[in-house]
Formats: sequence, structure tokens, C-alpha cells
Amino acid sequence: MSQLQEFGRIVRPTTIIESRQLSDRLGVRLVIASETFQHTGSFKFRAAYNVASRVPQNLLITASSGNFGQALAYACSLLRKSCIVVMPANSTRVKVDAVREYGGQVEMVDVRVKSRQDRVAELALEHPDAYIASSHDDPLVIEGNSSLGKEISALSPAPEMVVAPVGGGGLTAGIILGVEQSPRKIRVIGAEPLAGNDAARSLQAGKIVSNAAEPETIADGARNIRLGKHNWEILKSGLTVVVEVPEETIIQATRLLFDLANLKAEPTGALGVAALITRPDLFRGYFICCVVSGGNVDPGLYATILTA
Amino acid sequence: MSQLQEFGRIVRPTTIIESRQLSDRLGVRLVIASETFQHTGSFKFRAAYNVASRVPQNLLITASSGNFGQALAYACSLLRKSCIVVMPANSTRVKVDAVREYGGQVEMVDVRVKSRQDRVAELALEHPDAYIASSHDDPLVIEGNSSLGKEISALSPAPEMVVAPVGGGGLTAGIILGVEQSPRKIRVIGAEPLAGNDAARSLQAGKIVSNAAEPETIADGARNIRLGKHNWEILKSGLTVVVEVPEETIIQATRLLFDLANLKAEPTGALGVAALITRPDLFRGYFICCVVSGGNVDPGLYATILTA
Repeated sequence: MSQLQEFGRIVRPTTIIESRQLSDRLGVRLVIASETFQHTGSFKFRAAYNVASRVPQNLLITASSGNFGQALAYACSLLRKSCIVVMPANSTRVKVDAVREYGGQVEMVDVRVKSRQDRVAELALEHPDAYIASSHDDPLVIEGNSSLGKEISALSPAPEMVVAPVGGGGLTAGIILGVEQSPRKIRVIGAEPLAGNDAARSLQAGKIVSNAAEPETIADGARNIRLGKHNWEILKSGLTVVVEVPEETIIQATRLLFDLANLKAEPTGALGVAALITRPDLFRGYFICCVVSGGNVDPGLYATILTA
Repeated sequence: MSQLQEFGRIVRPTTIIESRQLSDRLGVRLVIASETFQHTGSFKFRAAYNVASRVPQNLLITASSGNFGQALAYACSLLRKSCIVVMPANSTRVKVDAVREYGGQVEMVDVRVKSRQDRVAELALEHPDAYIASSHDDPLVIEGNSSLGKEISALSPAPEMVVAPVGGGGLTAGIILGVEQSPRKIRVIGAEPLAGNDAARSLQAGKIVSNAAEPETIADGARNIRLGKHNWEILKSGLTVVVEVPEETIIQATRLLFDLANLKAEPTGALGVAALITRPDLFRGYFICCVVSGGNVDPGLYATILTA
């Protein structure tokens, strides 16, 4: 079996969800591509499995706020490899527990004292035989995520626009590559928290612009400092626009997905729908595919969102 | 286009969800057949669309605790027909609003003073040209629901057992008919609240046994007095067993679906998973398909379940 066939056998196809009520509310024709039922509950498994299966090393080390860590831990367990996941001390408990349950080793780091990257560098010195896996800046990550873009472009009819969350940019870079092969032009639009709007500022500046610190946003999958360099090479020409979403709109979108689409999304996963609420002028009348990137949210936080 | 083709074009296929974590926790090989992304958020649309499209009348009247009402309202709107839905005054607001949003007319009834059936009978006298649609006791309901059984039996490999909620019995009766055509014997097991265990008692007695009153259970889709007669003719020989589930286990199952499968289920929808928790001896080692019948739950109630 080829590596591509093996990838297709393991990675689950995205779940297409339609909600007439949500489409009506947002004033667009909408399909949701939900990665909440992907292995480990987010799109990150696409990248993680591609990385873990393609590199020769048997130990992988990564820094991750959670979803990539879970995904890499599970991918490694399927491939009988090991992995160490460096996580910020303020990660949600459900994500830490999940990494451990999937067989990963968790290294907590207080990001006010030391960055996750610095701790990874220390571990790399301790384990010279390990592969240091970036959750968002590795051609193998982009390649893994491109599988989602291919699935979306194969929808019949194909959407006119894809809206997806931007953290480090690996998801949107992959989607851009994936939809390029479509005979129909599909525009790719990013959605990021206004509180960490480095991608929007980078697109305006024509170069990578960093956040001053890890942004404080409810969208914990988008608490990155800057875009990945490999991603930027694709995003700078491939991304139509990045919508900057206020925190309260992320919460509103998470709630709308619950109310009108029966979909449990994590706040980061709701960024695409939040973009549709934030900038209706960009989307009105188009046929949109909104990527809900993951569903792993702490129950206490989610209950707060439901009763806000 | 034949009526069967038209049905297949409108009704959405069930969503198959697998969760390794949930399978491990329950000690079975499990697939979930989720009807939470069906039109109007529950399996009831299968029956409602079949009824509304097959009867000649242009006005339909029904009694429903909510999901059948929503489903019939939407089915009628697609078919340019009208409908009146009689609902108990203690129905969750989200279900009442949804019936209205789909174009249905809601008639509230205080079930302590007058039964829903009595109010339907009054309305039938006022509208002699209307079709009185039973949500759970009509051959057209069973036929509509059988489409889900056919989908489940077409899974590869086919499950050994299907576990599904029992209220009036229309869902399990339909599933039994639907899986009968499978070359492999698939057992169908019911799951009902212990607080309204008329189906289990009926199976033991060999005849329909009623609850003394509408049972007080969090599973609002199973607040029925007794099984439908048409359903009973199928259930009495086709149902292997009915598992009686305590209220706290319904809550636990709803929470497990959230935590381990990223699935928003209404409490009634979680009855199947609750049955696996209640009677592990019946299921251990088997390949099970668990039907999650719907996802329409009040956000306040759901938040309570997440923080219990």
C-alpha cells in the first residue's frame, strides 16, 4: 500500500453538515466541514499523522497548546512511535488528559517564565535522535492539511469560498494547496481573533508581523506569536483576506453552532462562523464552506458559553 | 421521480461517528449513528416527511413533545402544506420556537388539565379535512423510520446489535423492519427511562402495558403513556430486550458523548449509550451500533449536565 493510500485509510473524511437555520441566520448558503469527529477531535490529526508517518525518527517532540499534541500522540501510538508534548501550564485540563490518554508524555511549561520553544530546544539537546515537529511550520504539516482542501474542492457543487481559522497558518496554507487543483476558483479566507491579529497585519504589511506576546483569546488554538515561514510563502498570495474577530463574536458563533447546527465546536473551531458574523458584506449571497477545525473544549468553559 | 427516490433525495443519510475513547470506556466496538444532523435535528424527520408526502390532506395535526412537531412543520413547509402541533406547556422553549420557525402553528396544552390527545380530538372536530398524524403509531411513521434501519444494515461490516431509544416505539419498530433485509442477523435492543418503563413491562407481559401518567424523565422524547399498537405488532417479536435506564445514567451518557465523541446529544438521544452503561453484560465484546436519535436540547439544561 502506498503512503497516500495508507493516509486515506487512516484519516477520516471531514463531516459535511448543513443547517438551514444557520444559513438563514447568516444570510449565506453554507456548508460546514466539521473536523470535530476527526481522530482526536480536530483537523490536526491530518498533519500529525502525515509528519509521524513520513519522518524516519522514532521519537517526536512538539510544542502544542493541545490539539496537535493529542493528534501527534495518537498518530505515534498508531505507528508505534513515542512523543513528548510541551504544553503551557494554562492549557485546559481536558487537552492535557487527552494527550496522556493517547500515550503521549506531557511537559508543562510556565510560559511567563520560559517559552514553549525554549523548552523544546532544551529537550532537543537531551534527545539528539528526536524529530522536532512543528504544529504549524513544516511542509509535511501543510501537505497533511491539504487533504482537507482536496475534500472540500471535491464537493458537488464546489463552494465559492472556504473560511477557516488562522493560528500559525498551517490549516489555511494546506487548504489553499488542496483547492488549487479544483477546476473552479475557490477563494480561501482566514479568520483570526482580533486579540491576536498578526495574520491580518502580516497580509497588509506584505511580510510576517508578530504579536508582542501569546495573545489572550478564548480561541486557544490561535494563541500563536506569528505565522510559520513555510505557511507564509503560500498565504501571502493565496489568502484573499483575514477577518479579525472580536472575542464576544467568537463566543456568539460557538453558541450559534450549538443552537442552530447541533454542533459542539471549540471556540477556535467557531472562528470561521464568527468571521461570517463580523464581516457579512464579504460573504452575502455566496456559497460558503466554513471549516470547524475542532471540538475539544473544556465542559466548564462550554457551559459558561451556553449560559452567557 | 418515484416517491422512494424523492424521499432519498430529501432525507439526509445518518452521520456515522466513531470514537476510540468512547469504545474503550464502554468495553465494546461502537459506531454511533447520529441523527442530530438530520433535518430539524432528529430522526423524526424521516417519519414526518414520509407521512406528510404520502397523505392527500393539506392540513396535518399532531401531538408532539417537540421533535416530531418540528419535523412535521418543516416537512409540511417543504411540501407546501400546513400543520398544527399540540405541545405540553412544559416543553423546552427551544423546541416550541423551532416549530414556529419552521412554519408550524403551536397549540399549548396544560397536560395536568387536559391530555394532548384530547386537545387533538377537539382540533380534529374543528378541522374535519385534516390528517391526524401520530408521531409514533402510524404505518407511515414506521416506514419512514425503516430507512434508518436500512442504512445501518448497509454498513460494512454490519453491526451485530443496534441499540436505540424507545418512547412510543416507532423508531425501534422501523429499525427492526429496516434491518430485516440484511443477510446478517442484527439484533435490535431498546433503551428507555426506568421512570417510564412501559416497554420493558410490555415485553415481559406479552401485551401493551401503560404508564400511570406521562413519566417524569429528563428524556423528554420518552414521556409517553404506552407503545403504539402498530409498533407493538413489530416490537413484541422483533425486540430482543429493553434496557431500563436510571435518570443519572441518562445524564452520564449525555456527558460521555460530549466528552469523548464531541457529540451534542439530547438526553433522549443518549438513551442508547446509557443502556450500554446500565447493562454492560449484554453488550461486552459485541460490535454495536448506537442510535443517537436527536440533538435538540435546551442550552440551560445542557449546561447543567456539563457542570453536574
